[in-house]
Amino acid sequence: MHVYVSFFIRPDLREPLMADFPNATFTFAPHDVNEEALATANVLLTYGEDVTEDMLEKAPQLQWIFVASAGIEKLPAQAIVERNIIVSNVRGIHKKPMAESIIGHILALKRAIPWMYEQKKKGEWSQDVRQEELNGSTALILGPGAIGGEIGRILQKFDVTTIGCNRSGERAKYMDETITFEKLKDYLPNADIVLSLLPKTKETDRLFSYDHFVSMKETAIFMNFGRSNIVEESVLIGALKEGQIASVVLDVFDEEPLSKDSELWTLDGVVISPHISSRSSRYVERSLAIFKPSLRKFMQGYRNLENIVDLKRGY
Amino acid sequence: MHVYVSFFIRPDLREPLMADFPNATFTFAPHDVNEEALATANVLLTYGEDVTEDMLEKAPQLQWIFVASAGIEKLPAQAIVERNIIVSNVRGIHKKPMAESIIGHILALKRAIPWMYEQKKKGEWSQDVRQEELNGSTALILGPGAIGGEIGRILQKFDVTTIGCNRSGERAKYMDETITFEKLKDYLPNADIVLSLLPKTKETDRLFSYDHFVSMKETAIFMNFGRSNIVEESVLIGALKEGQIASVVLDVFDEEPLSKDSELWTLDGVVISPHISSRSSRYVERSLAIFKPSLRKFMQGYRNLENIVDLKRGY
Repeated sequence: MHVYVSFFIRPDLREPLMADFPNATFTFAPHDVNEEALATANVLLTYGEDVTEDMLEKAPQLQWIFVASAGIEKLPAQAIVERNIIVSNVRGIHKKPMAESIIGHILALKRAIPWMYEQKKKGEWSQDVRQEELNGSTALILGPGAIGGEIGRILQKFDVTTIGCNRSGERAKYMDETITFEKLKDYLPNADIVLSLLPKTKETDRLFSYDHFVSMKETAIFMNFGRSNIVEESVLIGALKEGQIASVVLDVFDEEPLSKDSELWTLDGVVISPHISSRSSRYVERSLAIFKPSLRKFMQGYRNLENIVDLKRGY
Repeated sequence: MHVYVSFFIRPDLREPLMADFPNATFTFAPHDVNEEALATANVLLTYGEDVTEDMLEKAPQLQWIFVASAGIEKLPAQAIVERNIIVSNVRGIHKKPMAESIIGHILALKRAIPWMYEQKKKGEWSQDVRQEELNGSTALILGPGAIGGEIGRILQKFDVTTIGCNRSGERAKYMDETITFEKLKDYLPNADIVLSLLPKTKETDRLFSYDHFVSMKETAIFMNFGRSNIVEESVLIGALKEGQIASVVLDVFDEEPLSKDSELWTLDGVVISPHISSRSSRYVERSLAIFKPSLRKFMQGYRNLENIVDLKRGY
């Protein structure tokens, strides 16, 4: 068994990995493609962004790609499907750091924490600020999967009503109620927080139009931590400028890095999280904790690995 | 029954209050003392800061002071005790807004949210920042009462180990373990978050010395949301400057407003919450929700009201 790793793993994590699998060969190629090693690689560990058709051609023995990230849009889907290569990812890995980031952003806004930072810089003592409470509010969570569920689980402990929104309307965990996309407009007027965690698919494309923002509370926080395709950036900016909603927190953008010229940088009420909400100093450690049991299974001949991704479906 | 209210209550809250108690007379005197009304007042609703011995002398019929705040240090304790006036407060009221503020501050620091705000101001896209995770860490909560318990309850849902610390070491709710003040030094080296909610008493005075900070993790967050007497400000500043701890979040100060000259304003790693963590746009509404059942009991002749404060004990 030959495992090819295309990202950097610290020695203190790399050594236990090799020790755990004495019957496997590991190639660590975090900087350049090692074509010789690829030629015999059976398993590829990657963040997903470096996998090209060309790379796949150089890896004729490849049977399994383990993507240490949730987004798999950049994978050459057709080539992978044709060759029947298994793709699995680290679906669960993002839920804790992302939930912490998202709830951190919400609490910061509700409790006037950005204002406190500004006051400190000015050296100005003041108590003259409006602070809201999170408890008693309603959160509409689009895409209530593993990450949305983790956020719902914690929000419920803050006494927040959680409404999940997905394609089927099928009941989702830690949601007080789950609705279909069709019902979205009926529920927007009562939501204090609207959070999207949706993947990029045909159904989610431009799900939000100007009218959706008009129907929202003027005090609402709109958060996009899924994919940017759900709303046109200019529509979102317009709605915020008109005061249709109070705040926007974005982790995803049409263009990344976000252009220097984007109005989002200068607009009040916008928080820019530069696609880092899932990052953590413990990320690789966590990825390997998910990878190891799967590798063990794979080496025993099983193919029913954890978190298998259906590339035809897109997530 | 004559109820004297010394703080401002919005008409939309004032009217239902009067409607609920048709047999009581209300005097609303949010700006100046109404001596004539005081002369016949049986109940005083106050934020606690305006009550003086002189005021009490002018209110010979006073039997109960309802303090819509948790701190009762400014009350003329001796005069109140001598006249057997009941004092009750809104102990529970702060727990939700305070828990939200405190957890908001913790998550903001862990997830690099202040850094994101700065990057936005600079218009600079970068992902080059260290983000920690809250889950898996240990919080040491000094004074695990109603507020500390609420924070512990939520922190446990973030998979944080909660250690309560009080005088008796008596088991406190939502604490995985409770220790006495004497054990503090043994537990500090393992704490990622040290949060004080302690009242000002003889036992809590200068509870933290320089050595305590030396024994803490260099990555620790020290938070004081109780009273400032637990540590000398200069000791805290010294420990932070030396890197004995990473961050300090303060809601309470020796001098309030904090002096323009205080080094806390300019020191990195300090967050100043100008004694507003318990504030909320829903504060008065909440106070009245606690007051009303007590007033009902009181008018029926009962004296075993909610949240009675023992002024001899100090909290």
